[in-house]
Amino acid sequence: MMLQLESQFPGTRMPKSTKTAVLVIGGAEDKIHGREILHNFFYRSGSGQSRIAIIPSASREPALIGERYHRIFADMGAQEIRVLDIRDRTQGSDPLILEYMANCTGVFLTGGDQLRLCGLLAETPMMEKLLQRVHLGEITLAGTSAGAAAMGHQMIGGGGSGESPNRSLVEMATGLGIIPEIVVDQHFHNRNRMARLMSAMAAHPNKLGIGIDEDTCALFEQDGLLHVMGKGTVTIIDPGEMSYTNESYIGAKDPISLHNLRVHILCHGDRYHIHQRSLMSQKF
Amino acid sequence: MMLQLESQFPGTRMPKSTKTAVLVIGGAEDKIHGREILHNFFYRSGSGQSRIAIIPSASREPALIGERYHRIFADMGAQEIRVLDIRDRTQGSDPLILEYMANCTGVFLTGGDQLRLCGLLAETPMMEKLLQRVHLGEITLAGTSAGAAAMGHQMIGGGGSGESPNRSLVEMATGLGIIPEIVVDQHFHNRNRMARLMSAMAAHPNKLGIGIDEDTCALFEQDGLLHVMGKGTVTIIDPGEMSYTNESYIGAKDPISLHNLRVHILCHGDRYHIHQRSLMSQKF
Repeated sequence: MMLQLESQFPGTRMPKSTKTAVLVIGGAEDKIHGREILHNFFYRSGSGQSRIAIIPSASREPALIGERYHRIFADMGAQEIRVLDIRDRTQGSDPLILEYMANCTGVFLTGGDQLRLCGLLAETPMMEKLLQRVHLGEITLAGTSAGAAAMGHQMIGGGGSGESPNRSLVEMATGLGIIPEIVVDQHFHNRNRMARLMSAMAAHPNKLGIGIDEDTCALFEQDGLLHVMGKGTVTIIDPGEMSYTNESYIGAKDPISLHNLRVHILCHGDRYHIHQRSLMSQKF
Repeated sequence: MMLQLESQFPGTRMPKSTKTAVLVIGGAEDKIHGREILHNFFYRSGSGQSRIAIIPSASREPALIGERYHRIFADMGAQEIRVLDIRDRTQGSDPLILEYMANCTGVFLTGGDQLRLCGLLAETPMMEKLLQRVHLGEITLAGTSAGAAAMGHQMIGGGGSGESPNRSLVEMATGLGIIPEIVVDQHFHNRNRMARLMSAMAAHPNKLGIGIDEDTCALFEQDGLLHVMGKGTVTIIDPGEMSYTNESYIGAKDPISLHNLRVHILCHGDRYHIHQRSLMSQKF
């Protein structure tokens, strides 16, 4: 169901004045009014010169959701927009898709089911190309909800809430590894997911936990600087100084101890460096 | 509706071998099977020599809930049990109640509504006597659910969940001030209350946040040592190193920033010193 490519690519890269980024969005981003987060993605993809790929593969209604984002970015004035409606892993080797992936300036991963998304995309030639271009800073990538969850190498595939942190509260899987050092959770405070992200951190204490609320974005620049944008908060759970956890000794439903976590709740305008694991100065 | 006092008190204090404590219980403690937490209260109140006061004033069905705990402690073999069914502040000056409060060895505050509990008890002569005896270490005090919430000086009176931390997510009120340096939240992970306790800490950064899960107890000894007991976790939110919050600059529904919180998730057997704000050593 991939839309046919109709034009040759000029082969130009992103305009130099635009800084590429990875936008990790907590789901339910504003699509109607200010569209602040989507506008930022559009801007970072090159504004009027942007060539955008929408990947709706996480969704069970990819045509519908693909069309919705298509209208939004068309409305903003993108130069070119393709919905890469990948429903089969073989499409990840499709030369037309690979060609667009080599030439687009922004990629948007929609919501849906992150296990489905990774099942379709992980380790395909298309995904390898996307990863490479993101790491070279050639392209802006955004993922919302399931598309956000898939950003880390360790991915939260599902889980629950309303319980003490415990191993059975979170199902871990392998993500797309775009920012390998983080574990993302989305719809974070909206769906009360603190305990499930804590449970994930107990199992992966070398990672950094990032919980993103709805209509909120953790925007990562290439140097590891995270900017917060939007209506809610971004929660950082840093287990770097964790002095004890019983995680490996207990049963799947037993409560987990986590001693000495560092936690930050960040709002619009706050900045955090994920490599240095430190907040950037803030005016009091 | 106070039960009549039928006997003279011998005037003896707690047996020296029993260490008094304050038991802060997250609600829904086991009342049927192991009754571990209630047994510990009974033991710390003097076991077979215990003279217990049950205060069901938080509840709208005080007779029912009072009778339920009466049966439990009678079943355990308490020497004397009184339900102090206080439904009016004037009862807090009742000589019979004051006499029992001066001579009992354990006081149990039931669940219900913490605003109602404090409205009835705060600053009555009975409450002054109870506070004095707790601080002298003469008496063991337990509070579950609403009875736990009321332990701090700053009290969470109500609030919500499923939102980014914000001021309107928590209603603060004045508690009984038994452990003035803490802000307690109960049914903690069970009712997804992390964001509301975070919101409370932003407003009261000189306090220590204590979130207690159901069937779980934070047992405080006189020196400030907290022991965790029961099925769930006790969450400590320590804002002692908090480097920034926007709490005082924002609207009631705006999200709150909190930078540099220290968070501990503690399980059965874990110990934490609330004055030193440090974990006691734990075997790895």
